[in-house]
Amino acid sequence: MHTPNAAGVARAAAKIADLLPNTPLLEAEVNGTLVWFKAENLQPVGAFKIRGAWHRLTDLSDAERAHGVVGVSSGNHAQGVAWAAQRLGIAATIVMPNDAPQVKLDATRGYGANVVVYDRPGGEDRDAVAQRLVDQSGATLVHAFADAWVIEGQGSTGTEIIAQLAARGHGAPTRLICPCGGGGLTAGLALACPDAEIVPVEPEGWDDVRLSLEAGEIIGVPDPKHPTACDALQTPATRPINFAVLKGRVPRGLMVTPAEVRAAQRWAFSKLHLVIEPGGAAALAAVLAGKVPVDGRTVVILSGGNTDAAAFAEVLTSKD
Amino acid sequence: MHTPNAAGVARAAAKIADLLPNTPLLEAEVNGTLVWFKAENLQPVGAFKIRGAWHRLTDLSDAERAHGVVGVSSGNHAQGVAWAAQRLGIAATIVMPNDAPQVKLDATRGYGANVVVYDRPGGEDRDAVAQRLVDQSGATLVHAFADAWVIEGQGSTGTEIIAQLAARGHGAPTRLICPCGGGGLTAGLALACPDAEIVPVEPEGWDDVRLSLEAGEIIGVPDPKHPTACDALQTPATRPINFAVLKGRVPRGLMVTPAEVRAAQRWAFSKLHLVIEPGGAAALAAVLAGKVPVDGRTVVILSGGNTDAAAFAEVLTSKD
Repeated sequence: MHTPNAAGVARAAAKIADLLPNTPLLEAEVNGTLVWFKAENLQPVGAFKIRGAWHRLTDLSDAERAHGVVGVSSGNHAQGVAWAAQRLGIAATIVMPNDAPQVKLDATRGYGANVVVYDRPGGEDRDAVAQRLVDQSGATLVHAFADAWVIEGQGSTGTEIIAQLAARGHGAPTRLICPCGGGGLTAGLALACPDAEIVPVEPEGWDDVRLSLEAGEIIGVPDPKHPTACDALQTPATRPINFAVLKGRVPRGLMVTPAEVRAAQRWAFSKLHLVIEPGGAAALAAVLAGKVPVDGRTVVILSGGNTDAAAFAEVLTSKD
Repeated sequence: MHTPNAAGVARAAAKIADLLPNTPLLEAEVNGTLVWFKAENLQPVGAFKIRGAWHRLTDLSDAERAHGVVGVSSGNHAQGVAWAAQRLGIAATIVMPNDAPQVKLDATRGYGANVVVYDRPGGEDRDAVAQRLVDQSGATLVHAFADAWVIEGQGSTGTEIIAQLAARGHGAPTRLICPCGGGGLTAGLALACPDAEIVPVEPEGWDDVRLSLEAGEIIGVPDPKHPTACDALQTPATRPINFAVLKGRVPRGLMVTPAEVRAAQRWAFSKLHLVIEPGGAAALAAVLAGKVPVDGRTVVILSGGNTDAAAFAEVLTSKD
């Protein structure tokens, strides 16, 4: 089995540099301190997930490509896999929850993927659905976070950040604050930026990585039906491949409330002029709430921007 | 008197490259054709206006700096001048309309400028207000568009676009489509990109540049009280310094309706994950409405993103 590693991150970063321009690293003041923001919402699919999907699919053999790929995702990984598969001429089937944002369902189909819907509110096991599809077709499963290539690919975000800071005369980042679902991006950044503190941020009720880091072993969320606007971060539990990277390397995780997430979306709207989806704003929410210190070499990952217009309008006009 | 010219644009571009990272040049499909988008809403002040202001203020002598500057603007130029003045330690007074978006008034004051409000709906002459302030203080007037340095500075947008396309293996742009108020950006792009067709786009009722190009002489708008959401483009008439560059060089201007502008803001929200203010979306509106042809070397300028949350929420939920 392939273990995710720093050399793999470097290889992923090189492939992605050939394919996509760097996403911008923006600078803005938070409570008097200049902080950096990595705008992954400006990726072609609106989220960093394009990185891991591209690294995974380009490493498939011709025989594997012929059997297609199966992805499981609430929407951003779905779009990443569908986008990469379309570029490479690989058939893609994506297992998505029936309560995913409509924009994410539409966009995934728009990239030519076959979407199979499962009943998330009803508690249907998405991994079982995906496994059945894999068993039937011989396709390769591209997991949203528990996959060595996916972890390495997401890590290329960190490789880019180091280069962008250097190009502007700054040293490597001291602290990277990132939204966290299952820990794919978090693990990738940990490999890409060995000298930085990595701070994963999860939404209220979905803090499995935080709980697991605290306990020193994988712990699932207490209530996998807890409602949250952060659909991109709704992961019941991290996996061994992720936790093996995080344990001992990442000291702690943070949790943010729904109101803190909305405030962060509004801040990104007015200060950065960016559309950030709820899950994509989790790290920024922790910063604005003062839950993590920042300095001039702190980088906040804005991980995605795929949100329905009506939902975003509600956030903009919400009083809290 | 200083006449705006290509050498000045190059000098402005060099100064701005030392100060600010390039704004991203994003790629997205419009009706099956890949088109480029220059995201000037991601400038620190949320609009391209920072360019002209920086070029103008850095060229002031020490004696001129000591007397301060006066700007006239509905908000984006205001923020550009205020931002540049704060960086350079120059006192700035900005004449702004009393119906400017609150975010623009707040942001301008936030950069330390003294804001003097005039009665735009009541028809008060903003230039007369500004002239009085200049007469009193000996300050330098930094006009929002009728200024050689401002034109050259805005032109640096085009210099960046040429370099960014080249870095990605493409030739110079064939066509630049830009929102147009008084013609500062339009004239700057015409100087910066001599081989490109420049297409200025104005909102319904504020098409003075379009009318002037058609007539071959400067013509003002028929009704300077015509309501528009495009506050950034509300210019009653272009000026001789702008028209001298445009005449004979820019074949025609286009006009877009309020509904076309809203559709463009929604498209930028969902496809690009960017917050674009009404005026900043005018060029995109013309493209989406099929009013101008596009090809793989067409660049659409998204000129600003300073809009109130409530106004943007209304656009997102509007049915047309």
